Amino acid sequence: MATTAGDERTVQLMLKRWQDPETGLDRAWREEYLVYLSFPDPKKPNKVTVVGPSGDVLHAIREKEKPYTAEQEDPEVVQPYAAYSPAGHAKGKLVYANQGTPSDYERLNQTVDLAGTIAITRYGGAGRGAKAVNAAPYGVAGVLVYTDPRDINDGVTSDAGETYPHSWYLPPSGVERGSFNGQFGDLLTPYLAAKEDTYRIPAENVTGIPPIPIQPIGYEDAYVLICALDGDAAPQNWQGGFNCTYNLGPGFKPTSAFSASDVQMDIFNYEEKRNSSNVMGVIRGSVEPDRYVIYGNHRDSWVHGAIDPSSGTSVMLELSRVLGRLVKQGKWRPRRSIIFSSWGAEEFGLIGSAEYTEQYFTKLSERTVAYINVDIAVFGGATLSAAGMPSVQNVIFTAAKQVNRHKAPHAAAAEPLTFGLFAPQVAAPGRVSTSVYENWLRFSNRTSPALGLIPRLGHITGAGSDYAAFVHYLGITAMDFSHAYDRTKSSARTYPAYHTAYDTFDYASRFIDPGFLSHQAVARTAGNVLIRVADSLLLPLNCSDYAETLEQYLTTAESLYQEQLSAQKIPMEPLKRAVANFRSAASHLDRVIGASDLKNETPLKVRRINDQLMLLDRAFLNPLAFPEKYAYRHVIWASSSAGQPTFPGLADAYAQAESSGQSRDWERVHYQLSVLTQSIDGAAQTLVDVI
Amino acid sequence: MATTAGDERTVQLMLKRWQDPETGLDRAWREEYLVYLSFPDPKKPNKVTVVGPSGDVLHAIREKEKPYTAEQEDPEVVQPYAAYSPAGHAKGKLVYANQGTPSDYERLNQTVDLAGTIAITRYGGAGRGAKAVNAAPYGVAGVLVYTDPRDINDGVTSDAGETYPHSWYLPPSGVERGSFNGQFGDLLTPYLAAKEDTYRIPAENVTGIPPIPIQPIGYEDAYVLICALDGDAAPQNWQGGFNCTYNLGPGFKPTSAFSASDVQMDIFNYEEKRNSSNVMGVIRGSVEPDRYVIYGNHRDSWVHGAIDPSSGTSVMLELSRVLGRLVKQGKWRPRRSIIFSSWGAEEFGLIGSAEYTEQYFTKLSERTVAYINVDIAVFGGATLSAAGMPSVQNVIFTAAKQVNRHKAPHAAAAEPLTFGLFAPQVAAPGRVSTSVYENWLRFSNRTSPALGLIPRLGHITGAGSDYAAFVHYLGITAMDFSHAYDRTKSSARTYPAYHTAYDTFDYASRFIDPGFLSHQAVARTAGNVLIRVADSLLLPLNCSDYAETLEQYLTTAESLYQEQLSAQKIPMEPLKRAVANFRSAASHLDRVIGASDLKNETPLKVRRINDQLMLLDRAFLNPLAFPEKYAYRHVIWASSSAGQPTFPGLADAYAQAESSGQSRDWERVHYQLSVLTQSIDGAAQTLVDVI
Repeated sequence: MATTAGDERTVQLMLKRWQDPETGLDRAWREEYLVYLSFPDPKKPNKVTVVGPSGDVLHAIREKEKPYTAEQEDPEVVQPYAAYSPAGHAKGKLVYANQGTPSDYERLNQTVDLAGTIAITRYGGAGRGAKAVNAAPYGVAGVLVYTDPRDINDGVTSDAGETYPHSWYLPPSGVERGSFNGQFGDLLTPYLAAKEDTYRIPAENVTGIPPIPIQPIGYEDAYVLICALDGDAAPQNWQGGFNCTYNLGPGFKPTSAFSASDVQMDIFNYEEKRNSSNVMGVIRGSVEPDRYVIYGNHRDSWVHGAIDPSSGTSVMLELSRVLGRLVKQGKWRPRRSIIFSSWGAEEFGLIGSAEYTEQYFTKLSERTVAYINVDIAVFGGATLSAAGMPSVQNVIFTAAKQVNRHKAPHAAAAEPLTFGLFAPQVAAPGRVSTSVYENWLRFSNRTSPALGLIPRLGHITGAGSDYAAFVHYLGITAMDFSHAYDRTKSSARTYPAYHTAYDTFDYASRFIDPGFLSHQAVARTAGNVLIRVADSLLLPLNCSDYAETLEQYLTTAESLYQEQLSAQKIPMEPLKRAVANFRSAASHLDRVIGASDLKNETPLKVRRINDQLMLLDRAFLNPLAFPEKYAYRHVIWASSSAGQPTFPGLADAYAQAESSGQSRDWERVHYQLSVLTQSIDGAAQTLVDVI
Repeated sequence: MATTAGDERTVQLMLKRWQDPETGLDRAWREEYLVYLSFPDPKKPNKVTVVGPSGDVLHAIREKEKPYTAEQEDPEVVQPYAAYSPAGHAKGKLVYANQGTPSDYERLNQTVDLAGTIAITRYGGAGRGAKAVNAAPYGVAGVLVYTDPRDINDGVTSDAGETYPHSWYLPPSGVERGSFNGQFGDLLTPYLAAKEDTYRIPAENVTGIPPIPIQPIGYEDAYVLICALDGDAAPQNWQGGFNCTYNLGPGFKPTSAFSASDVQMDIFNYEEKRNSSNVMGVIRGSVEPDRYVIYGNHRDSWVHGAIDPSSGTSVMLELSRVLGRLVKQGKWRPRRSIIFSSWGAEEFGLIGSAEYTEQYFTKLSERTVAYINVDIAVFGGATLSAAGMPSVQNVIFTAAKQVNRHKAPHAAAAEPLTFGLFAPQVAAPGRVSTSVYENWLRFSNRTSPALGLIPRLGHITGAGSDYAAFVHYLGITAMDFSHAYDRTKSSARTYPAYHTAYDTFDYASRFIDPGFLSHQAVARTAGNVLIRVADSLLLPLNCSDYAETLEQYLTTAESLYQEQLSAQKIPMEPLKRAVANFRSAASHLDRVIGASDLKNETPLKVRRINDQLMLLDRAFLNPLAFPEKYAYRHVIWASSSAGQPTFPGLADAYAQAESSGQSRDWERVHYQLSVLTQSIDGAAQTLVDVI
């Protein structure tokens, strides 16, 4: 966990690897930030109890997860808690509030007076901290959150042969920990690097964190509480995986053992500023050292973190080892610089990566070609999963076609990890091998107007991992790789041991990736992409694929908004023209590239085109477009609460205006449309002839 | 005047010159914006009258300036007015409010109840519009503003042989027109280019423009009003150049002809959106076309504008003619692209240049090496005057040393204008000639720790001309050139005919620059710099000179703030370390440059260093540092009201905290210190080795 002795040991491990004289990088070092974290008090564990009318404790929530292997008994296992939940004592009638979204509380409040209640919610639907933020206006005194077996376990609930250690499913006492904050980066130093002397806002001014106590619990305890709830039955789509009806409350059934009882929360979390480190390592570029490809993964976990983040860390260490060795042997050096980063304190809110981008904002903005993120490398064994700006689609496809997907662990393990790039892989005799691309195409695909049936590259619109600051704050072209389970076979929200004490090497090696073939598929593919981006003469970024996404977004926006916008006399034509301009500029640049014999061009002509490609995403930044969203500046990829696959600022403003009907809100729609239009026009301007 | 038929004729002139097949540029075109302007109504002229108790008009302010030459009788001469003053009628007792600063009104309000009064103010001390903005909270009903002869005419007041057409001094009826807004760029489209369909804020939401009517008048009329004022004598430093005591009012002396009379204002200004054009012309760079040197001057004037802006326009046209001819003849093409710009609607608030930077924000940020501004090229004949970021000091000195200052008009006129660069100038026999540098050094100098006695390069901290958006919004290294009068011989605020109907060719050629030698000095020097910046292999920008200024600012900040900051436990050490880091990084980059044989280096290594130099100012941008100052993002050069030659955000925050004593304000000081420190550290990071 961030800033613990264990964290420091992994810092030392990273430094040792990256400073290794035979397989290390050119240089490696640590960078420290003094960051605002939140911990439970080991001497006063958080307690959640059912307290009878006479004050006697009728039930106490389990304080630690049940041990099945020695790892759960490690004294370093942190008690489940909600980071940034305030300390405090709350007592009241229990209510069931579904996922704790604003509409959930609104609905519940129609039936139940929420003042002074304790709300139990299930994970999903709303951000962790939002479940408490949304509750507070109704006077809710405290919130519990648990993982419903329907959402994570495909109905499996028994540890007698069903859940881990018998399968990948979450045991009944498993609890998802997490950060319950609403923005990324250090909470006390918004837009500034959290150095020792940096100005810090008063802690009471931090927004987006729970104003009332909140505590995560296991479904074993949630079952006991929910199935005893009194009151009306919750709506059908609020029902979960327990074999009882989920009632709304308030309070427990008179027929239950908890009749007339309250739920009491005693939370002892405390906040503290602690030093957290990023570990950085570089390979200096041979021709364009002032162009960076950054490859990052976080280092901190909640408990053992075999999958989150160590699956990604193992991939990164293998990539850096292989590339480092080539460099140390003098066999290879990339054209551009590669920066590896082992981010600290990601679990508390992407803190290490966000502080890094704040400290080196200008340098990174000017020089970074792309950011590659591999956090949880493997969720499951089915298929590669990748997300990123549309301009990286092509290079990912190229890499994924070149990397073979091994079926036999022993054969694969014997093959050197060269990402299929230096020495094209040939399937060993007798071994069936398909490409990562073909396999991906089978699991997740879409039809592109230009390219036909292709794998579906995800969009990065949120802040789920360390790519957030690069995408949203810096406007750097980014991608995220992992290996996924088959979602047609499991509806689990994520791999079931996520953020619990069961995310161990035993769990990972037996249930997530036996033989580590999926780790290899991710390493080979991400590594192949890394080398292509760092070492190609021409940057393998495709602006026409970007145009296709803008066109799709536009089509969606037209079908959703055109009619009402016309009625409001807000013209969409400028946006249509801007998207058409972008397409035409992208086609033009593609023609320039196609018509150039780049190897024989002057270095500055190639650099000129590369700069156009590198800086394309920067053109979509507007630091004033989303004043209410911390560090969101990219007008195409900002998160949106409207839930439409289209331009986020327009979608959110439209949803607000449609809901309120106020002319001021329609003006905001027009404003967002102008911001968007001028961004796209400005981006198109960077792709046409440079003068 | 912007958007008039005359403006269109000059648009056509610029296009014709820049599209000339023999002396034009590679390409020239116009770019239109629909901008929010303000005009007086020709059919209902603004009136200011003294109205007696029975309603009879005892005095009427002159509606147009007195004609001395035919130019003043041109029907196109716009009536003196305050652009963006609201229309309206105001009537009340006259008071004298000095320069209309906040402290002036505060002082005056101690003696006089200002509610319902008309305040007469003199130009200077506060921005034009601020004189009304500051007045409104006291209930002042209307404001007059005039140019006091003490401030512009060195005491000269009579047109019987003293003022123009007998000298450069302002005739009694001369009135300075101007824009009375508080921010630059189109007022309805903040941060967006004012295209036809762009979202516009409601006009009533525009801030920083006069909330009450304001009208400029000549000192001839001001004399009649002020010398009849009743009440206590104004403080000594409020007294001006009239041969009477300036009393505060309210109202007129019972002994005067205006006894018991009010001043009435009838203002008929109206606002209108009109199309305004920038004219753009480019010379494409031969080696780095994607690097721009932008050279700009505005095109619009208030009346004839022989000096403002035509002195600058003539310089620009001569530069573009000479360079264009070399290009058309195939004799020369600069390494980098040159963009010439003839900005529209500058007089209304730098609108053309600001809209341009908003429309092409990303492209310009990424590619612009420097912006060169020559607005009023010649204020007088004494000396070159230049301002800019410290990094341009060296190239300006180099140019100024190479350009000779001619004493004999006829000899100079015969010499081809090659800026002293292509063919070094040799003084013609029998003609005394000193360099522009030597002459400058005599008039304005300072002692640099590194360089000894050198001419004083000004800082660009405000928004006085079209450099504003480049400096403050884009963080582009900029410079501004003009030729100045001898301030030891005249205390005039500016050249006396500024913004009046007397700024004519006759005035310019007889009193400002007989023989146009000063125009030539500016053209040769600015042209020399332009060629050096556009055509040098290594960009002639010096980061160590930047370090010197940061050190001077730091020294000032320490002496002013250190003691009190220590008492407030706000550490200055991080700032000191940051400035030291910057110095060390600058020295490092200078050593790298000095140790390189750049001509024999790879093109990409030279480009790398050039990018470090080009982007240095970008590192000082922070779009969130000055939320209350429109488009000010450069943390070193932002305007400051604290009036100290040091870091502006720190200075303003400190002044506020010291005045209020509130802990919240001291927190803002600490915040500004962190913003500043991290900007300087970030800038230093861009100057060290690129990886």
